[in-house]
Amino acid sequence: MGLRRLGWHVSGYDLEASRAARALQLGAIDEVGMDPFAAVTFVAVPAGAVARVAADVLSQLEGPGAVTDVAGVKEAIVARLDDPRFVGGHPMAGSEQEGVDGAGPDLFLGATWVLTPSERTSPEAYTEVSSIVRALGANPVPLEARRHDLLVALVSHAPHLTAAALMNLAADAASSDSTLLRLAAGGFRDMTRIAAGHPGIWPDVVAENKEAILAALDGLGASLDKLRAAVASGDRTGLLDLLQRAREARRNLPSGAPSPEKALELRVPVPDRPGVVAEVTSLVGSLGVNIYDLEIVHSAEGGRGVLVMVVDAASGELVRSALAERAYRVSVHRMEPPAMEPPGPSDR
Amino acid sequence: MGLRRLGWHVSGYDLEASRAARALQLGAIDEVGMDPFAAVTFVAVPAGAVARVAADVLSQLEGPGAVTDVAGVKEAIVARLDDPRFVGGHPMAGSEQEGVDGAGPDLFLGATWVLTPSERTSPEAYTEVSSIVRALGANPVPLEARRHDLLVALVSHAPHLTAAALMNLAADAASSDSTLLRLAAGGFRDMTRIAAGHPGIWPDVVAENKEAILAALDGLGASLDKLRAAVASGDRTGLLDLLQRAREARRNLPSGAPSPEKALELRVPVPDRPGVVAEVTSLVGSLGVNIYDLEIVHSAEGGRGVLVMVVDAASGELVRSALAERAYRVSVHRMEPPAMEPPGPSDR
Repeated sequence: MGLRRLGWHVSGYDLEASRAARALQLGAIDEVGMDPFAAVTFVAVPAGAVARVAADVLSQLEGPGAVTDVAGVKEAIVARLDDPRFVGGHPMAGSEQEGVDGAGPDLFLGATWVLTPSERTSPEAYTEVSSIVRALGANPVPLEARRHDLLVALVSHAPHLTAAALMNLAADAASSDSTLLRLAAGGFRDMTRIAAGHPGIWPDVVAENKEAILAALDGLGASLDKLRAAVASGDRTGLLDLLQRAREARRNLPSGAPSPEKALELRVPVPDRPGVVAEVTSLVGSLGVNIYDLEIVHSAEGGRGVLVMVVDAASGELVRSALAERAYRVSVHRMEPPAMEPPGPSDR
Repeated sequence: MGLRRLGWHVSGYDLEASRAARALQLGAIDEVGMDPFAAVTFVAVPAGAVARVAADVLSQLEGPGAVTDVAGVKEAIVARLDDPRFVGGHPMAGSEQEGVDGAGPDLFLGATWVLTPSERTSPEAYTEVSSIVRALGANPVPLEARRHDLLVALVSHAPHLTAAALMNLAADAASSDSTLLRLAAGGFRDMTRIAAGHPGIWPDVVAENKEAILAALDGLGASLDKLRAAVASGDRTGLLDLLQRAREARRNLPSGAPSPEKALELRVPVPDRPGVVAEVTSLVGSLGVNIYDLEIVHSAEGGRGVLVMVVDAASGELVRSALAERAYRVSVHRMEPPAMEPPGPSDR
């Protein structure tokens, strides 16, 4: 819907013909079917099926198109797809509504959209996918697949299981005292909202990211235990400290890219070959620096391009010197203030 | 703000003069000060101070006014206030914003507002407080104080601590990889939103409701352990079952009073004396039946009144016969469909 609004031609396919028909009816697609000349093909299937379906799509492409996916776990998928045209992706947005009926052209406005280029990913494929992500109003964030998986276990997978655990606990208690659920006010509703989503995607996600999820659940248990101990011992100061810390962290939760005055744009001439995107993102990641955006601008004559990367101003020199050590010639630029962006759906 | 919009005269007092001045400036009150002739006085102070402040207010009243409070824990407070003019209260609404700056005239629209009449509470005081709650657009729900405390430990106190635990876990992890918080999308933001609230109220709440909170945290731990076991053992069916159960419970979360066709109004002539409200609510509660609303209509000549109670249609006969056994003459009425109500703030 977002791309069609921009004038793109969008075709779409589903194993179930009725779903594809519904997408057509809702105006999410222009036509039903696979387009072998598509610029980008999005594989939106359960995590365990992505590698197989994406390989199938790649074998059918007849143009120079790129392929990406939207699964919530990335390492296992990326490892199975040995093709320069593939870039793993994970849009960090959505709703508890299901399928195409939960769709809308603004779903990704302001959202973080992780891309996980591998050593095999070609700069062209990365550029194509990141520019379509940007066209949808999202902020593409390049990350190593493994790092993505560890981080989403903490901020997405374990929280999702926690929402389900809270809801099940309340449902158990409500079976003997149904007044309980009438007392479920805004806070409880907020905390359990994601538990209303379709559970179908979770067995695959959990299977593919099991160790990180177990570690995150153990971390949550330890974090809860600290609070429980303060409650049990009547330690008012300890309890206040823990709650105050959570409050400050919640209030400082970033809501997208940094303000332009806090960001720098690094421009790096690069050969136009697979591996260059993964090399730079891995190097910057190993420095502990966030890449807020990454883009490859191809030169007119081909074969070379300029990698444009946005990082925190404070980390600019660290990144520049690390790249210079590997013989990259880096130029550093201040960023122009962007046009005012609408608030992201992630901050509902 | 809500009452002033309806034309009430509202006075308010705070230990800090600057806060009272701010309330006046924002249009939350008409004047600064205590009104000894107020119809209802709301004591909005930390839970540990309510009994003392409410007793002080009661000693200053010169009219027939009632006194209520808004603390999130009730049994200890109600037990300490031996006065027919006091009714404990707990509005199940609010926001993570602080103080009078987070106020608005619609804050309680559609919200559940628990009232905890004791054996000493006079029908006049109950009626006065419940009608002002209804005027604010909230649904007064009478509950025994102890039952309220057990239930809110499950749907409010333990979830709040869980939100803080999740936020602290993420903050710890983000200190070594700051990309983490960029991946915090809508689900994580929803789950941690209440952790942004001011922690100042919590030491009192936790101290007054410690045992119930510890039991709720242990219940949550057990609920999470079931999910963890399904993840660890790769039990796809078990995981799906637990998530499916949570999904159904979340989707069936009630959002206020039942639809009129599912509710019955019971009218019970009662003597106009302390204890009658607590007697009826305790009796109905012991049957496992929810009271969606309760009101006392005084007769013109005084000394007697009619208690009007709304319960599930399915439970109407059970309640009627239990009351009849105690020599109450109960008449049962179908409810008229009410005017369309705006969506509650609890379902943001």
